[in-house]
Amino acid sequence: MMNQNAIRTAGVLGATGYTGQEIVRLLRAHPSIDLAFATSEAEAGKSVAGNGLKYVKSADAPLADVDVVFSCLPTGESGVWALRAAEAGAVSIDLSADLREGNEGAVYGLPELWRESIVNARLIANPGCYPTGILVALAPLWDAGLVDATRPLIADAASGVTGAGRSAKRELLFGEVADDYRAYGVGNAHRHVPEIAAGLARLAGQTTEFVFTPHLLPIRRGILETLYVPVCDGITAADLRAACNTKYATERFIEVRDEGLPSIRDVAGRNVVSLGFSDVANMGRPMVLVVAAFDNLLKGAAGQALQNANLILGMNEGEGLPA
Amino acid sequence: MMNQNAIRTAGVLGATGYTGQEIVRLLRAHPSIDLAFATSEAEAGKSVAGNGLKYVKSADAPLADVDVVFSCLPTGESGVWALRAAEAGAVSIDLSADLREGNEGAVYGLPELWRESIVNARLIANPGCYPTGILVALAPLWDAGLVDATRPLIADAASGVTGAGRSAKRELLFGEVADDYRAYGVGNAHRHVPEIAAGLARLAGQTTEFVFTPHLLPIRRGILETLYVPVCDGITAADLRAACNTKYATERFIEVRDEGLPSIRDVAGRNVVSLGFSDVANMGRPMVLVVAAFDNLLKGAAGQALQNANLILGMNEGEGLPA
Amino acid sequence: MMNQNAIRTAGVLGATGYTGQEIVRLLRAHPSIDLAFATSEAEAGKSVAGNGLKYVKSADAPLADVDVVFSCLPTGESGVWALRAAEAGAVSIDLSADLREGNEGAVYGLPELWRESIVNARLIANPGCYPTGILVALAPLWDAGLVDATRPLIADAASGVTGAGRSAKRELLFGEVADDYRAYGVGNAHRHVPEIAAGLARLAGQTTEFVFTPHLLPIRRGILETLYVPVCDGITAADLRAACNTKYATERFIEVRDEGLPSIRDVAGRNVVSLGFSDVANMGRPMVLVVAAFDNLLKGAAGQALQNANLILGMNEGEGLPA
Amino acid sequence: MMNQNAIRTAGVLGATGYTGQEIVRLLRAHPSIDLAFATSEAEAGKSVAGNGLKYVKSADAPLADVDVVFSCLPTGESGVWALRAAEAGAVSIDLSADLREGNEGAVYGLPELWRESIVNARLIANPGCYPTGILVALAPLWDAGLVDATRPLIADAASGVTGAGRSAKRELLFGEVADDYRAYGVGNAHRHVPEIAAGLARLAGQTTEFVFTPHLLPIRRGILETLYVPVCDGITAADLRAACNTKYATERFIEVRDEGLPSIRDVAGRNVVSLGFSDVANMGRPMVLVVAAFDNLLKGAAGQALQNANLILGMNEGEGLPA
Repeated sequence: MMNQNAIRTAGVLGATGYTGQEIVRLLRAHPSIDLAFATSEAEAGKSVAGNGLKYVKSADAPLADVDVVFSCLPTGESGVWALRAAEAGAVSIDLSADLREGNEGAVYGLPELWRESIVNARLIANPGCYPTGILVALAPLWDAGLVDATRPLIADAASGVTGAGRSAKRELLFGEVADDYRAYGVGNAHRHVPEIAAGLARLAGQTTEFVFTPHLLPIRRGILETLYVPVCDGITAADLRAACNTKYATERFIEVRDEGLPSIRDVAGRNVVSLGFSDVANMGRPMVLVVAAFDNLLKGAAGQALQNANLILGMNEGEGLPA
Repeated sequence: MMNQNAIRTAGVLGATGYTGQEIVRLLRAHPSIDLAFATSEAEAGKSVAGNGLKYVKSADAPLADVDVVFSCLPTGESGVWALRAAEAGAVSIDLSADLREGNEGAVYGLPELWRESIVNARLIANPGCYPTGILVALAPLWDAGLVDATRPLIADAASGVTGAGRSAKRELLFGEVADDYRAYGVGNAHRHVPEIAAGLARLAGQTTEFVFTPHLLPIRRGILETLYVPVCDGITAADLRAACNTKYATERFIEVRDEGLPSIRDVAGRNVVSLGFSDVANMGRPMVLVVAAFDNLLKGAAGQALQNANLILGMNEGEGLPA
Repeated sequence: MMNQNAIRTAGVLGATGYTGQEIVRLLRAHPSIDLAFATSEAEAGKSVAGNGLKYVKSADAPLADVDVVFSCLPTGESGVWALRAAEAGAVSIDLSADLREGNEGAVYGLPELWRESIVNARLIANPGCYPTGILVALAPLWDAGLVDATRPLIADAASGVTGAGRSAKRELLFGEVADDYRAYGVGNAHRHVPEIAAGLARLAGQTTEFVFTPHLLPIRRGILETLYVPVCDGITAADLRAACNTKYATERFIEVRDEGLPSIRDVAGRNVVSLGFSDVANMGRPMVLVVAAFDNLLKGAAGQALQNANLILGMNEGEGLPA
Repeated sequence: MMNQNAIRTAGVLGATGYTGQEIVRLLRAHPSIDLAFATSEAEAGKSVAGNGLKYVKSADAPLADVDVVFSCLPTGESGVWALRAAEAGAVSIDLSADLREGNEGAVYGLPELWRESIVNARLIANPGCYPTGILVALAPLWDAGLVDATRPLIADAASGVTGAGRSAKRELLFGEVADDYRAYGVGNAHRHVPEIAAGLARLAGQTTEFVFTPHLLPIRRGILETLYVPVCDGITAADLRAACNTKYATERFIEVRDEGLPSIRDVAGRNVVSLGFSDVANMGRPMVLVVAAFDNLLKGAAGQALQNANLILGMNEGEGLPA
């Protein structure tokens, strides 16, 4: 039987990227998980801020000695390391896209939708940032039969720059991003599209048509998703709100607004998805606008990863997380 | 007969707002129009930067003594002043929303679409910023019969802050807008919706269904509109691009991209609408993404106003305008 | 005798300004102080976010029913209310400049320098943001006799916009502040100059010559102060660092860097002043550069106010404060 | 004899960096100089925006076929190429730091101070951005004997990010620079310090003591320099302003303010240095604050380079430059 009071230990692979930094930061405030190692190829030997540790290279990380490993390496590298950590016996949480198609038996870690499958997992594919908001926003609507499946969903999204990682790329320089706003990965070409499609299919029980268009915002953190949801005849924003209130009544990290729409500033620094709803005037067939706002580094990445770790380690799911 | 070489004179009402400042700035570089007066209730008596003039109060403006008056006062006040200027004999261009429904016979001043009606007008309702991009992007598609009118158009838009004017409002403070991104005027509630509806009806010859959602960007200037256009079977992005190329072949201030999508930085400081196109994968019924980018203060306001003035005064339409 | 485990209650006057919001936010996480009221003239009757309370007008605030009152009203109004709160029997902490000259017996609340005078006070003048960094940086140098008093100190400072408050003023609009950087209150004309002078005199035991130049940064929060400190012959940056390390060895909210200089991002969201030091090459008479960085809303305002409240209420000084 | 009406040709080496892009942009509006080639190792073969040209590799640039070459390559590479261009017979202007110590006989190209030495030069070392503002601000003060040379000058400066170039470096990512402000190259360690020292010595006729501290601003372009100038007894800000007005009476690109201080927004997009002055209260020995603002890419780099080219090619010095 698991002792819920024991201090557990964690390791972070790729701890100097934005997501890795965020996990390290969250663990500093976590009452029951201590950081045992943090890896960085480039900064090995240097001190981890606010912590007695020094970065080690991933190859030197004692994967077998910790309770949980968070792999925050770039997509393409991260999955392999997450598998190694799992084989070494740790609970392993991969924050990249590598294992999200269920490869190697990883469980998709979106607690508010599929908590029961997470609790006993040992290998987690942590959801992508964009899919998190879309799936959280739409799940209750499918559950309640509010969506008109004969018309496509439009998901127009905008993300702060940290979502693109911390690699030195010209297109991510301040001089390029500031004063700008641009669409990218358009036409359903973004790498999150298959993940969104799989998630919607799981929710809807059928293939669902959608268009997903991400944009790059000149801010550091936060995502806003503006969802144009085709709904069944007679359905209004109030019905969608009610469905979300019902489904998420006991969820600490989902916020359903009674009025108004969430903005990025409302959620920055918090591990929540905030949802707002609006009817649309002058439409022949009804459509409801749903806006989801969340912090890409928290509920969109590191915060959700820590929720998963808490769940699997038998702790309070919200331990160490700012709501 | 009009002497095209003579120097004409202009007055600007409301010259210290963002739009008014931009017209004053453009006129400084205009070879054939001199600024004769600029009004400001709050700064009357102070010097107009880069110019020997001093601001006067609107009531003291010599409306009858200039060739053209640009009214940049707030919506609600501006139209009345534009009418006064027209009555005083000046060519009068109203940059507010006051006269855009055709009140008092004002002509809607979008040169690339309806130039022939502008040339002989004396009172112009200058288009709103958001409608300008949407109408410019869609006009060729309706002309060419590419749009499927049975499905709604989605127009998701994002604007820099200067589009909201220069009045001291808490929600426009740097401390509120920075690091944020939010939707506003959602559900077809924005004041530009009737103008968009009227413009689309004029283009399509019928009522057209659409959803318009503006967002506020933490940048000073620029608009990006992401348009989800339902198209007829078999129609692709290439067809839309070709239609735009055909219609705008000789237009100096419309840019049709051969590849890629425009971003705000591409158009800031330029009097152009830049258009890009993308197919969308995995759709049952075809949809094409059209992205329009432009500078809200130039092609979305002051630049377009000056195009109109140039046209009516018999000058080269692009005089004094950065393309 | 004071029961250190009892829950105390607090009220915030002017709770919708940036400083007031920050105190409300800090109190949400405080284990031993509950928010009992929050005032706002404009938003009276509306809900306080994340809290069952509604804003009340200041005139309706039950000053006598709480243990501590934080007055975050504008300078000119705030001091009067702080005095009323003190008369009503509450510990009263004024965050404006009104009482900083010692009027009405208010104690200057900079704990790391003058803690013993704070512990038994009932009325506190919370320090200004700019003076906090300057005094914290220089106090150890005067104590250790390192400063050459015959030459002036230059204090060049830059602050995020929230330091200027949340009133709707044109010069604080996003459209004015973004992409800009400007000096203001130059030539020792800023209202913090007398406070800096008084603080330096108290530290040095004599009048001290200095120049203070604040600048406005296009960011929301954070202050960086670059101090050009004339030092005695033979004194180097290492001596200044050592003096600070000695004086602040046990201080939780002062960070003395072993190497490098702090930046604003290092301290945003934390209740610390971070100090760094550098020698200056090619100087006739020696000068050392000291850089102080801190969050204007935390260690520069609300965080320091809460330190003072904790001290006076007999709690752990750091309770509820992020270091 | 030089025909002033002939169209000249120019080449730009390193045309995709921020400075190179700016020269290309300026040349598009230049009535008498056409761009003949633009080099980029990474983008060779791609089209130069707004221009029929394609980028070529530097090794393929026809240096001998153009009238003037602007070398905008990184410091360390640029000087060699500028020398090659000069040997090939072109007027050669190096925008890097490579030739600023007078190596190879390059003439320091700051027209307002040393125009007569520029007119007949064939190889120009274009000044650094920071030195430009400092030297322009101080030259009239030394000329007029206003500076007290026994006390050091403090030059506290802040620059937008484009001053650091367009190379993909982690520390220049949007995610690192946004919401931050930091000092760098402190303690007279910045690479512009020798250039400032040489310039001040040339102005003062003697070695001059100063401290130079640059900071990185979260904006794209613009520099503000806050100069603490020790002045002779009895000298005030009015004397400094008068000296500048006298010296720069006929200069189109130097702006001497009658009142107030310039800010970065005042000068962005313009090829000017704007100067403002303020007395400082409460000083034992007098000090005057001088603030210089300019656009680092224009008067601090590309604009000044074009001034130099215009001068040497016998054109109007301000041709193609926005004042």
